[in-house]
Amino acid sequence: MVRVGIVGLSGYVGGELLRLLSEHPQVTITYVASRQYAGRPVGEVTPAFAGCTDLVYEPVEPTAMAQRCDVVLAAVPHGVGMELAGPLLSQGCRLIDLGTDFRFSDPAEYEAWYAHEHTAKQWLAEAVYGLPELFGEQVRSARLIGNPGCYPTASLLGIAPLAQAGWVDLDHVVIAAMSGVSGAGSTPKPMYHFPECSENVQPYGVASHRHTPEIEQGIRRLAPGRSVRVSFTPHLVPMIRGILATQVLIPTRSVTQDEVQALYQEFYAGRPFVRVLPSDRLPTTKAVWGSNFCDIAVRVDQRAGKVIVTSAIDNLVKGAAGQAVQNLNLMFGLPEGAGLRRPGLYP
Amino acid sequence: MVRVGIVGLSGYVGGELLRLLSEHPQVTITYVASRQYAGRPVGEVTPAFAGCTDLVYEPVEPTAMAQRCDVVLAAVPHGVGMELAGPLLSQGCRLIDLGTDFRFSDPAEYEAWYAHEHTAKQWLAEAVYGLPELFGEQVRSARLIGNPGCYPTASLLGIAPLAQAGWVDLDHVVIAAMSGVSGAGSTPKPMYHFPECSENVQPYGVASHRHTPEIEQGIRRLAPGRSVRVSFTPHLVPMIRGILATQVLIPTRSVTQDEVQALYQEFYAGRPFVRVLPSDRLPTTKAVWGSNFCDIAVRVDQRAGKVIVTSAIDNLVKGAAGQAVQNLNLMFGLPEGAGLRRPGLYP
Amino acid sequence: MVRVGIVGLSGYVGGELLRLLSEHPQVTITYVASRQYAGRPVGEVTPAFAGCTDLVYEPVEPTAMAQRCDVVLAAVPHGVGMELAGPLLSQGCRLIDLGTDFRFSDPAEYEAWYAHEHTAKQWLAEAVYGLPELFGEQVRSARLIGNPGCYPTASLLGIAPLAQAGWVDLDHVVIAAMSGVSGAGSTPKPMYHFPECSENVQPYGVASHRHTPEIEQGIRRLAPGRSVRVSFTPHLVPMIRGILATQVLIPTRSVTQDEVQALYQEFYAGRPFVRVLPSDRLPTTKAVWGSNFCDIAVRVDQRAGKVIVTSAIDNLVKGAAGQAVQNLNLMFGLPEGAGLRRPGLYP
Amino acid sequence: MVRVGIVGLSGYVGGELLRLLSEHPQVTITYVASRQYAGRPVGEVTPAFAGCTDLVYEPVEPTAMAQRCDVVLAAVPHGVGMELAGPLLSQGCRLIDLGTDFRFSDPAEYEAWYAHEHTAKQWLAEAVYGLPELFGEQVRSARLIGNPGCYPTASLLGIAPLAQAGWVDLDHVVIAAMSGVSGAGSTPKPMYHFPECSENVQPYGVASHRHTPEIEQGIRRLAPGRSVRVSFTPHLVPMIRGILATQVLIPTRSVTQDEVQALYQEFYAGRPFVRVLPSDRLPTTKAVWGSNFCDIAVRVDQRAGKVIVTSAIDNLVKGAAGQAVQNLNLMFGLPEGAGLRRPGLYP
Repeated sequence: MVRVGIVGLSGYVGGELLRLLSEHPQVTITYVASRQYAGRPVGEVTPAFAGCTDLVYEPVEPTAMAQRCDVVLAAVPHGVGMELAGPLLSQGCRLIDLGTDFRFSDPAEYEAWYAHEHTAKQWLAEAVYGLPELFGEQVRSARLIGNPGCYPTASLLGIAPLAQAGWVDLDHVVIAAMSGVSGAGSTPKPMYHFPECSENVQPYGVASHRHTPEIEQGIRRLAPGRSVRVSFTPHLVPMIRGILATQVLIPTRSVTQDEVQALYQEFYAGRPFVRVLPSDRLPTTKAVWGSNFCDIAVRVDQRAGKVIVTSAIDNLVKGAAGQAVQNLNLMFGLPEGAGLRRPGLYP
Repeated sequence: MVRVGIVGLSGYVGGELLRLLSEHPQVTITYVASRQYAGRPVGEVTPAFAGCTDLVYEPVEPTAMAQRCDVVLAAVPHGVGMELAGPLLSQGCRLIDLGTDFRFSDPAEYEAWYAHEHTAKQWLAEAVYGLPELFGEQVRSARLIGNPGCYPTASLLGIAPLAQAGWVDLDHVVIAAMSGVSGAGSTPKPMYHFPECSENVQPYGVASHRHTPEIEQGIRRLAPGRSVRVSFTPHLVPMIRGILATQVLIPTRSVTQDEVQALYQEFYAGRPFVRVLPSDRLPTTKAVWGSNFCDIAVRVDQRAGKVIVTSAIDNLVKGAAGQAVQNLNLMFGLPEGAGLRRPGLYP
Repeated sequence: MVRVGIVGLSGYVGGELLRLLSEHPQVTITYVASRQYAGRPVGEVTPAFAGCTDLVYEPVEPTAMAQRCDVVLAAVPHGVGMELAGPLLSQGCRLIDLGTDFRFSDPAEYEAWYAHEHTAKQWLAEAVYGLPELFGEQVRSARLIGNPGCYPTASLLGIAPLAQAGWVDLDHVVIAAMSGVSGAGSTPKPMYHFPECSENVQPYGVASHRHTPEIEQGIRRLAPGRSVRVSFTPHLVPMIRGILATQVLIPTRSVTQDEVQALYQEFYAGRPFVRVLPSDRLPTTKAVWGSNFCDIAVRVDQRAGKVIVTSAIDNLVKGAAGQAVQNLNLMFGLPEGAGLRRPGLYP
Repeated sequence: MVRVGIVGLSGYVGGELLRLLSEHPQVTITYVASRQYAGRPVGEVTPAFAGCTDLVYEPVEPTAMAQRCDVVLAAVPHGVGMELAGPLLSQGCRLIDLGTDFRFSDPAEYEAWYAHEHTAKQWLAEAVYGLPELFGEQVRSARLIGNPGCYPTASLLGIAPLAQAGWVDLDHVVIAAMSGVSGAGSTPKPMYHFPECSENVQPYGVASHRHTPEIEQGIRRLAPGRSVRVSFTPHLVPMIRGILATQVLIPTRSVTQDEVQALYQEFYAGRPFVRVLPSDRLPTTKAVWGSNFCDIAVRVDQRAGKVIVTSAIDNLVKGAAGQAVQNLNLMFGLPEGAGLRRPGLYP
């Protein structure tokens, strides 16, 4: 049994880690850490978990965690993961950081977009960007994972086959994405107050969202040496979970629907969590609700000279906690889908 | 491994059966039957299930089902279960009917409220009303289960301790309940059209809802010989899942909050799926979303001379599919919570 | 033209006052007061109102308001109205307080439920409870109005005909009500955070909600000398606006559906904002969305020995701002429906 | 008083016509026509309108309508408007068709996208595309208006200033738009069933939506002689009303934020229903809910080499009924904002 510690269980992503790991057959949760709730039972802090677990929050003590865990999953804001990495890794415990601290290979890029000094640069070199469908080989041998952001997961999986094939102009990648509100976390703010958020679509972070450079970095790795510029516009929509990303790309050569459809099916053949939809279907966030799937459809628009890729994930699962479990499985030689195979909730 | 057949998998309750049984460690699904979809893969009919299962729909053939299944779970409209019971039971296969055909011990009551002739009266005598917290002993030895309705599950669990204790006037039971829209099934109708249903509370079936006699029958079993009359008013509220039932009762003797709180805690002690909340908390449908829990709070209103019991369930889980799995577990001597222990989804 | 001042325009109820008065043919808004926003244009503080009005917030100065207004509408929390009453009334300006300070004739009751000393007791004697369908005659000559709460409006209109007729046991009034989230105001809190509030029904204030004594006071005025006890249970449901209240009453004599239907139709004959529905229909919050209507249906449940009254309002209109405008119309001798006749929004 | 007839009042757009015209000071509704409901009162068919109007549906008889109306507003599916045009216009009655029959100047384009023969080609020449901010002069003298589609209204208003200025590449116009469900009408279908539609984002009509050629035609008129190709991807989001359109454009020359901001402010100066937002704000559908406004923000993304325009409307008001009333005002020499000045609903 892999012994797992969780930091940030009381947040939305942390709660998903508990749910997914609860019946994972080869994992046992041995430590749940919280600065705020140390000493209190998990089921008391989050009523939904009462009766499901006997876990009690303990203080965030890396030495104790390293002793009692093989790996720690940290669902924490940026700036926290970098404090955990050194103490854990130097004591032999691996780390999957669901925050942003280990997603960028270039600390300058991190510092520019997050306005926060990176204090664990020495660990960046071995950090692996944990998007298993694209960089799975590196994940298997990693000690430190930067777990991808929710929007980058949806968009990179949507763009990867065309980017790698070199069939589209990567200097003009246009993405419009829609996210449920859980992506913003559990802290109440006016923008997420029910009467403001319901019956509302709110674009935000136009031309400035921090997931933009993360998407660009991912594309650059798939298409080394090419110029990559992404225009990314996120929108908050009135639902709890789910991301739908629409990627509009300009082909650099003549392409047909069949050709592109085949490209995607081959690219993702054998990947358990990417479902390339047939040409007469489109993804919806409902079909991936609560599951680790990413559904993708690709359409060639000959008339307008575009390829349109729509992709859907559950932002808390494939966009966060589920992907972390998938990474954990690969890191410890477990079946990639262990603990993740149960269907999501429908409806 | 218990071999399970499912009829009605393509509906909302049927889908929940698939989800819950998917990782049930002692169950294997051996037959999924559908008149409409025979020959088609489950994952093609319901996109959310693609990649989760290789099951293919087969025709509804009781003899074949009886041969290949130890038990059949039928998530079907009223009138269908009574056609399945004879063929299955006489060939040694048990039946859990999630429809209404085997919920009433008195066929005349069924026929009066459902305006449908009961054609399997000979099986009624051995049918057990499958509410395990109240009638669990009978469930263990049952061959035929009438799985309770969603509203009756919430209300009976809410009322049972007081009804059995004899502390309230059962001739004046007042229930107001609110349900998510999935309880109405997957067939589009004007009342459930998104623009009509969103931003709307719609009372319906006032003084005439068919779950009323089911609740009354349940109370009568808990308080034999007493007069029982229930006023039940359901309301459709704009959410997908969940039932919140508020029971207002007139005490027949002086009671205190501590006394009633203790009564409930003792009544449900050791029951894994009923959570009696402490006196400073109230149930919400969110806390039971996707799980098999029923959360209950009880309040004594000395000023108004009432006891108010609020109870919450997920209508598709504890109110249907989860309860059926719980019944299955008991019928086959498995742990009561097998396949049902994973937390629900939050948020 | 009646010159109107508004305090609290930046809140949800205040915004409705602006909307409703914007095209009121006999009213002009001459003063909008705000401690927080003095000096800023209304359309800058609330983007929805940009381009609709040139009004600019001014400080809350009762003397200036009294000079420039015939009446002030105050959409303010409890404790604020009592500070405005004296300065305004003594300088000849009338006051409609949409808060709670002038709803109770007995200051001890106010102080007990609101835990706040009443500092304007001298004005209570002339304060009129502004529910025009029940107490309209007093409204016409009032200088000071305590505008009713949202739940009391729905429930009192629902109960009034039976209470006054003496046909039901007023010692056992049971109300379950469901409200949209705007009733809780515009301040973000965890309970109203979209991911917590969506897909959720949350009972609250069980046996302790402050609208309970307001309902009881209203019934007592309709049925003087009789014992009145109300059990009131509110529930927060995932929608922006609307209240649906279900009143369950025990008849004290034999009643028929036709008889009660006729009672209601006669009671509300000629009242422009109460729609007594025919016996085959039920109210919904959608049918009153954005309008000043209260829809009411009454059902006699002979089987269970109950009369069930369901009533629906928009909590921000008939439950607050619309009712205030209706009161204003009556106070100044204008047509009762002036500014309120446009249909609500559907869907 | 302008005498107005309405066809299609029982639909969602028709209902908005009633609401908006109800207090229009220079308009009186003299005829409401319905094949289905002839003889029934409007307030009986749509409960929300009971008590607001005494109108009774009459048969769809163009001759009678022409006699009793100065103008007919037809909120009808495509194919119906073309049957009304001849009979009405030849008898001296004007027509505003809220359907699609008179939006395209080239009948071949209509027939190609709608797969429906155009049987009133003789009237096309004088039909005016009724988007007043762009083609208002033609509207003033029109007898026949093709009232624009909801998506084209949002996108054309968003793109017009840049298209006319010639600052962007019109061969690579990329639009992603999100719409509430009322845009799909009032007929229940699985895609709009509440449990399917709630908690879901559903892209649809990718590379094939019928509003694409309507947007392209509009841009061509603003930038004659230039190549125009639009990639348009609509998404259904879980709300009742509202459209948010995001336009991503490639500048053909160097542009700054200040320059583009000034361009938009000048272009729409004096237009009462377009609000160009300051550079630190973004539109939301909530801010235009129930109103005739179109809110627009423009952002220059120097890094990615794009200009991003976000625009928001209420699909039933500025995207349909409100725009029709605005057209009516212009056609009859009334103030452009008559009947449309009241703020929308917030929240």
